[in-house]
Amino acid sequence: MTVGNTIGFGKRLADAFDTAGQLCVGIDPHGYLLAEWNLPDTALGAREFSLRVVDAAVGRAAIVKPQVAFFERFGAAGYSALEDVLAVARSAGLLVIADAKRGDVGSTVEAYGQAWLTPGSPLEADAMTISAYQGLGSLSAPMELAERFGKGLFVLAATSNPEAASLQTAALAAEVHRGKTVASSIVDDVIGWNQQHGQAIGSVGVVLGATVDLNDYGIRLDALSGTAASIDASSVNASSVNAATPILAPGFGHQGARYDRLGALFGPAAPFVVVSASRSILSAGPDGVAAAIGAQAREVAAVRHTSRGDQWSE
Amino acid sequence: MTVGNTIGFGKRLADAFDTAGQLCVGIDPHGYLLAEWNLPDTALGAREFSLRVVDAAVGRAAIVKPQVAFFERFGAAGYSALEDVLAVARSAGLLVIADAKRGDVGSTVEAYGQAWLTPGSPLEADAMTISAYQGLGSLSAPMELAERFGKGLFVLAATSNPEAASLQTAALAAEVHRGKTVASSIVDDVIGWNQQHGQAIGSVGVVLGATVDLNDYGIRLDALSGTAASIDASSVNASSVNAATPILAPGFGHQGARYDRLGALFGPAAPFVVVSASRSILSAGPDGVAAAIGAQAREVAAVRHTSRGDQWSE
Repeated sequence: MTVGNTIGFGKRLADAFDTAGQLCVGIDPHGYLLAEWNLPDTALGAREFSLRVVDAAVGRAAIVKPQVAFFERFGAAGYSALEDVLAVARSAGLLVIADAKRGDVGSTVEAYGQAWLTPGSPLEADAMTISAYQGLGSLSAPMELAERFGKGLFVLAATSNPEAASLQTAALAAEVHRGKTVASSIVDDVIGWNQQHGQAIGSVGVVLGATVDLNDYGIRLDALSGTAASIDASSVNASSVNAATPILAPGFGHQGARYDRLGALFGPAAPFVVVSASRSILSAGPDGVAAAIGAQAREVAAVRHTSRGDQWSE
Repeated sequence: MTVGNTIGFGKRLADAFDTAGQLCVGIDPHGYLLAEWNLPDTALGAREFSLRVVDAAVGRAAIVKPQVAFFERFGAAGYSALEDVLAVARSAGLLVIADAKRGDVGSTVEAYGQAWLTPGSPLEADAMTISAYQGLGSLSAPMELAERFGKGLFVLAATSNPEAASLQTAALAAEVHRGKTVASSIVDDVIGWNQQHGQAIGSVGVVLGATVDLNDYGIRLDALSGTAASIDASSVNASSVNAATPILAPGFGHQGARYDRLGALFGPAAPFVVVSASRSILSAGPDGVAAAIGAQAREVAAVRHTSRGDQWSE
């Protein structure tokens, strides 16, 4: 539950989708992209690059996703640039997902949650990506923080890189999830969390690459969409609802997934997918980035508009 | 292989052990610890706290491990404090492990490697912790960087928190590692990497909690110590050697593991263990921290000195 009048992240995400669609613009100030944009490979170059992308995204897309690694390489100066980017993007009304992939346990991972999710923090974003190598249970502190402050988390589950498959398809032996893959155990626990927190769309999402076959991971799209019966008897309680779980899906554009396959890939969960593209947009350069965002946003919207009701067609 | 006259991280670690022992002092500027130390819960408070710990460690321990999360919560100001702490600790001759637990893929995780491992970077450390949720193969760029610059990595394998066990003991189905646990597949791949990189002690280590039963994970301590035959036919080539693999072991002190159990816990791999303690040292307060480090370093050394040759007794 959220406190006071705080609006949950899932609701804010749904509103953003309704206002400006499901496209999420990655902000990746790679060295090679800074060179292509005729900007110096410095913190100030990364700042300028990012602010131009934010400017191009406003009015054309709802969501941006700065990649923290490309700021961290400049140390404190890079973080100072990132603070500016986060603040400008949020005050322009964009929903900002900090792609940080942080992870740890206890009060340490809570500190990461405080860094990125606490209102008034210098690095405040609307959501962050997070990694559960130490078990989803290790992330309970930032999950609680997200609920409390109307913020979001996206937990890595089935990622789009090929080296990930053998670990993420490993089979659990422990009782509750016996035989499930690592990825599906995380997805099911996140769904269970959202079902217990009483929002129509949950605050905690999962990262599912658009280039992977989710069947290989045993991931159930009906459960993610909130249309299936409760997936786990142990997670049912009086307050549980059939919450939908947000999905952050990288892998579009440069990595090969096509927007017109959204319905085929995500089925009933497609309306809850944050459709993330980075290099296919950023490689358009400073003069072309606004047009690229507009064109790709329209492409994603076209797929959505061919749907009936809340469901997507293929 | 390292370039030019660069000394490999494994060799630097062994030298540090010989000079000042295996104790690693965690630098965790928690809010509650700052309060106990009568310091403000700000970036400057974290800086002051950390510099006092560094000062207390010099001459008493070889290694310090700043926990990045507690700096990140202050944004750029926190990173500015961390830059000072890293620089002061390194110039005082301490080996610095940035406990960052970063992880990503391709050029993104390479950017994290650049941030923490590149000579001259504002956040330069001697080693960093890293997470392989996206597969150990996703970390090849920072592993290459570490070899090149004489830096170290510690990849999370079997961590000390109880919520981690079900994921880290999941069984892989893919051919090379069929039936192995997630943790042991990472350990074996790291050992294979070190065997192929021609150092007596490798640059890439693993994180193994001192509170877990490594048998449950199928982790072979003889292979970690470099005394076993090559563990994986696929990793053997002309240049392979029986390299030892460094181990970062949290879980001592506050979390319950005892120093005198080092030999029992790690057997032939005990000489390669970075023995990490944080709260049991830091809770001694500003006036007691130097004495606490000295006492705990002597305790670790006593265990080492009862060993014959390079091996530890129990």
